[in-house]
Amino acid sequence: MRLVLDAMGGDHAPDAVVEGGVLFARAYPGHELVLVGDATRVRPVLERAGAPPNVHLHHASEVVEMDDPATAAFRRKRDSSLRVGFELVRQGEASAFVSAGNSGAVMAGGMLTLGRIPGVERPAIAALFPALKGEGRCLLLDAGANVDCRPSHLAQFAVLGEAYSRTRLGVKRPRVAVLSNGEEESKGTQLTRDASALLRRSDLDFVGYVEGKDLFSGDVEVVVTDGFTGNIVLKTSEGVGMGITGLLRSAIEKRGGLPEKLGALLLKPTLAGLRRVMDYAEYGGAPLLGLQGVGIVAHGRSSPRAIHNALVTTLQHVRAGVQEELTRCIANAAAWLPPHQRGRKADGDEGND
Amino acid sequence: MRLVLDAMGGDHAPDAVVEGGVLFARAYPGHELVLVGDATRVRPVLERAGAPPNVHLHHASEVVEMDDPATAAFRRKRDSSLRVGFELVRQGEASAFVSAGNSGAVMAGGMLTLGRIPGVERPAIAALFPALKGEGRCLLLDAGANVDCRPSHLAQFAVLGEAYSRTRLGVKRPRVAVLSNGEEESKGTQLTRDASALLRRSDLDFVGYVEGKDLFSGDVEVVVTDGFTGNIVLKTSEGVGMGITGLLRSAIEKRGGLPEKLGALLLKPTLAGLRRVMDYAEYGGAPLLGLQGVGIVAHGRSSPRAIHNALVTTLQHVRAGVQEELTRCIANAAAWLPPHQRGRKADGDEGND
Repeated sequence: MRLVLDAMGGDHAPDAVVEGGVLFARAYPGHELVLVGDATRVRPVLERAGAPPNVHLHHASEVVEMDDPATAAFRRKRDSSLRVGFELVRQGEASAFVSAGNSGAVMAGGMLTLGRIPGVERPAIAALFPALKGEGRCLLLDAGANVDCRPSHLAQFAVLGEAYSRTRLGVKRPRVAVLSNGEEESKGTQLTRDASALLRRSDLDFVGYVEGKDLFSGDVEVVVTDGFTGNIVLKTSEGVGMGITGLLRSAIEKRGGLPEKLGALLLKPTLAGLRRVMDYAEYGGAPLLGLQGVGIVAHGRSSPRAIHNALVTTLQHVRAGVQEELTRCIANAAAWLPPHQRGRKADGDEGND
Repeated sequence: MRLVLDAMGGDHAPDAVVEGGVLFARAYPGHELVLVGDATRVRPVLERAGAPPNVHLHHASEVVEMDDPATAAFRRKRDSSLRVGFELVRQGEASAFVSAGNSGAVMAGGMLTLGRIPGVERPAIAALFPALKGEGRCLLLDAGANVDCRPSHLAQFAVLGEAYSRTRLGVKRPRVAVLSNGEEESKGTQLTRDASALLRRSDLDFVGYVEGKDLFSGDVEVVVTDGFTGNIVLKTSEGVGMGITGLLRSAIEKRGGLPEKLGALLLKPTLAGLRRVMDYAEYGGAPLLGLQGVGIVAHGRSSPRAIHNALVTTLQHVRAGVQEELTRCIANAAAWLPPHQRGRKADGDEGND
């Protein structure tokens, strides 16, 4: 299999990204990895890292920066690593594209290059939350691509997330919920109420509303919300997780005496396990579900290890046949989500289509 | 000072609430505490707990249950502990009312009994987040009272939160921000953009947008958002916090061998400190800011210790003169938040006024 990696995307690009690509290529010598980016900047890192023969460099002269406005930057920079990388996927030269760049720009690039699966109104970013209780990990869509959503968008996010949870994560019958400010039907906004009404007619295992804490309860596998709320939820939980591990570390390292240091030493495997659960680097990037092709966004702060993991995730994503299942499920959803329902205009919709 | 406590509100009422009230009354013998609730249920708990003479029982025959629809229940149950308690404050018989009941019902009760500070469109629930980095604790408004908000509501939440942060938390010049899905001005929704435009004209130290993680960064003291997003953020951070402490505990207690158990023993003060930071029981309830009187909501799952802390918080709230400062600041805000701006209708507004 051949994967494409955006060498220029992310806070620590190209160094951390290229090093992560090399880690992956060494671990998976049976696959090909194409690094897309500015050759004058990428080649020295590749040489220093001692890239194996299954790593290839594909030059692209421009870079979409983290703070560029997404769609405009993509359109203007015709030789950006983002566009060139997605083009390789569109032309069938590669199976998937991975980037640690600005997720809005990556999504815009995927939309403009690959287009959408037939019937999909808005592709979504799917973020996987670590299980803090029980076994099941929870998938949240949309984690930030679509700020203003219609009820039909949320219903489609549910279809995409359920198909992903089944095919890629191996959940037999994922439970699907709408994120709200309380479990009672009387709670929520017009958007959550209308989306719930659509989902109650679906063939999904729709359990109604859940609250923020349920993302970690193991009681539900797919949670849908608009991209504004989803992004805030994602960043909040990152903030708490990093804050707590930071507090623990500083309590032990800085303020701790001999007993604390000995205690920390004895608890090292436990604390390391906890850190791994909380650390995004162990999680393998967020798929953009609904594109006509496979695109994965890695965290902007990705370390080489995180890039490696995102590439492994991508490999598994392609192998699992996620794309085919998404296409089938969106087509089937037309039975309970008729086109005239989909066209319904939501308040504040900005029509990014 | 005399405080009123809703003996019937909360998941563990009346027992945990009454016990918490007794804890407080013993610790603060110079103040009076009025417990409002069903005398046949409250008296036995009071007797068992050995209530000191500064605890008084005020009978109220009805209870607003956690799942009652807020406003309707309050209107129908004319002899509820909620209504009778707020009435004591309205009549000047007591300085403040504390309840661990349904926050929506408590807010509705406060609105219908006490009314609003002149000029306040929507009172808000203010939730205080623990500092996980740096020293400053961050206040979030609205944490759940107003699902649909207009820009002027968010601007007023900022005024109320800033005044509270100064007078009650002792922050000299609180930094104020709008919660959004990114720091750039191009991010956010119509609501966050319009609210930011209003706040840029204010005399507050407005720093623009912040992300979910910034609630714990120590970089900002007051963050405003609509009650839907605020409630989800609050529940998400509770979920992560409880999940992590649970993971640590189960790793040590259940799966741990002798080294882990010894390590946990040595680290006990550190872990206890961490738990205290995360534990809502140590935090003293959330004030309802903007009511014409002092109302404090304690967590529904409140332990006796949490009720005690909420009462201590309430005492400090009244002493600090928060109410007077809120009234002054809302009046002053008319200079940059003129009435015609306030009247602007937001999409999806349900007109709870």
